[in-house]
Amino acid sequence: MSLINKIRVDDELAGILGEELDRVGGILEDQLRSEHEIVNDLCLHIESYRGKMLRPSLVILSALTSGSKSITHAHRVVAAVVEMIHMATLIHDDVLDEADTRRGGRTINNLHGNEMAVMLGDYLISNSFHLCSSIEQPWINSILGSITNTLCEGELIQLGNRQNLDIDQQTYFTIVEKKTASLIGASCRIGAMLSDPEGRSADHLERFGVSCGIAFQITDDLLDLVGDQDVVGKSVGRDLEKGKLTLPTIYAMNEMEGDDRRRLVDLIEKRDLVGLRSVVRDAGLIDRAMDKASGLVESAKNELESLDETPARILLGSLADGIIDRRY
Amino acid sequence: MSLINKIRVDDELAGILGEELDRVGGILEDQLRSEHEIVNDLCLHIESYRGKMLRPSLVILSALTSGSKSITHAHRVVAAVVEMIHMATLIHDDVLDEADTRRGGRTINNLHGNEMAVMLGDYLISNSFHLCSSIEQPWINSILGSITNTLCEGELIQLGNRQNLDIDQQTYFTIVEKKTASLIGASCRIGAMLSDPEGRSADHLERFGVSCGIAFQITDDLLDLVGDQDVVGKSVGRDLEKGKLTLPTIYAMNEMEGDDRRRLVDLIEKRDLVGLRSVVRDAGLIDRAMDKASGLVESAKNELESLDETPARILLGSLADGIIDRRY
Repeated sequence: MSLINKIRVDDELAGILGEELDRVGGILEDQLRSEHEIVNDLCLHIESYRGKMLRPSLVILSALTSGSKSITHAHRVVAAVVEMIHMATLIHDDVLDEADTRRGGRTINNLHGNEMAVMLGDYLISNSFHLCSSIEQPWINSILGSITNTLCEGELIQLGNRQNLDIDQQTYFTIVEKKTASLIGASCRIGAMLSDPEGRSADHLERFGVSCGIAFQITDDLLDLVGDQDVVGKSVGRDLEKGKLTLPTIYAMNEMEGDDRRRLVDLIEKRDLVGLRSVVRDAGLIDRAMDKASGLVESAKNELESLDETPARILLGSLADGIIDRRY
Repeated sequence: MSLINKIRVDDELAGILGEELDRVGGILEDQLRSEHEIVNDLCLHIESYRGKMLRPSLVILSALTSGSKSITHAHRVVAAVVEMIHMATLIHDDVLDEADTRRGGRTINNLHGNEMAVMLGDYLISNSFHLCSSIEQPWINSILGSITNTLCEGELIQLGNRQNLDIDQQTYFTIVEKKTASLIGASCRIGAMLSDPEGRSADHLERFGVSCGIAFQITDDLLDLVGDQDVVGKSVGRDLEKGKLTLPTIYAMNEMEGDDRRRLVDLIEKRDLVGLRSVVRDAGLIDRAMDKASGLVESAKNELESLDETPARILLGSLADGIIDRRY
């Protein structure tokens, strides 16, 4: 499924993006081909994790928005690297969440056990760094090394706050920015910097990516809370199962008192997804979380204002709008 | 515990090595310090994993053996990077092996659960690459990225051969070379190349490291099979428990026939460590595996012959001898 299926896109841009994503896909396949059958079989399975290639698309669109008339090999390699980092986090996330389903298929941990999933994630991380070093631009290794540190910190802080019913909004947003938004922001920044090293577009586009990333994670958490597994295509209710409180529930825990609060705590402790859904929905907290995501999408789009109104910039705006248009 | 406690070392060299390892330790501590308490606490715990700093010592000794009169910042950073990669593999290995004890203390997975151990290992891998990019020598990122790919391939092949009672010697040596010896060889190679980019010493020292690494893993596997947990300082019998056949057992499976073989298969399937020990010991297969390790140590030392006979080279030879002098 392409990222732009449901969005009106300039024909020429759609052609360029499609062609470039195919090339990025080719780099990914080459990088993950192994002489060892066991390794090859696993890598073939995770091809399906690639999905919409959001991060590679952001690298390319940020480059085009920053004055690049054409995309270089370095852009494509970075696009493949950020997707590979993302795939590695999905595999290890599924281990952490004991998830069985991803994009409608079985997860690696479900198919081959946690051990294989741990090592395969490591293999992808390693490959991403190895591929990145092939373009011999140490500043990119440095940015991405720093981003993967941040990403792991986000996950570690989230793990440390499991079963913490008193987690505050600030901690939630710190986790989300680190574990999700930082890589999306870096995809935009590096794409822009490769095209226009001195310009201001990298700062704007990074902030665009970070705001989109936080908005995306809020809606992703909402899918886990109130989504339908058949529509979402992956396991739902995992956050509650794992004691991870997300935005609507954090709002509720902050604001409810007395019997209402005790009932809420009881639902969380009993992992009662249906009960929790109805409490936060009736209190209007699903809508409030959606409003928060919408506000972030508006902030993201404001960052685009000062950039030239190219077809690529217009598409970035539409992608941002698409975040709050996901189905439950 | 220092690597050189039981070895006679030139006084001046002992001073240099001790001082440099302290500096490397300082780089490691700086790199793993975080503003987040949760991350900091975990990193403090794994300080104890550092142990003998074998790989950093090899970087420094290889540099000194290749003509360096003094050690540079780049040597120290690479030394910290290879140790950090090694620590990451220990943490994920303990998850794979469900091990409870490491260097006499509790493992991260035992203390904080598998999820925390997976993410902490990722954090170390990421930090190692980030630190490596700080010296802005892309060829080092490239070598180490390739080595961590190799390392993960070794682990994946090993996982794919769990419960495989027909695993052959060649597959065993492929696994061992990839998962253990490659990083040790690379530590030697990079240390040498940073001192003498054009010279032949890097090739000799890499082969020295690879042979030592294979010999080391053979003896490490022997410790798991016939060692005493209190002496070894980590869980023993994990290989059998996890269906990993190691050298003496592979020899036995290759050679025994009829009732003897059936009895052997039965011991393996029943995870009977005491029984398996006595069968392979009585058949002289522990000794044969030790002889194999001794032969590899001799090959390793032969690689040193053509290099100048400096105190550092002499110490490398003694370290190689030390591999087959481990206690059971």
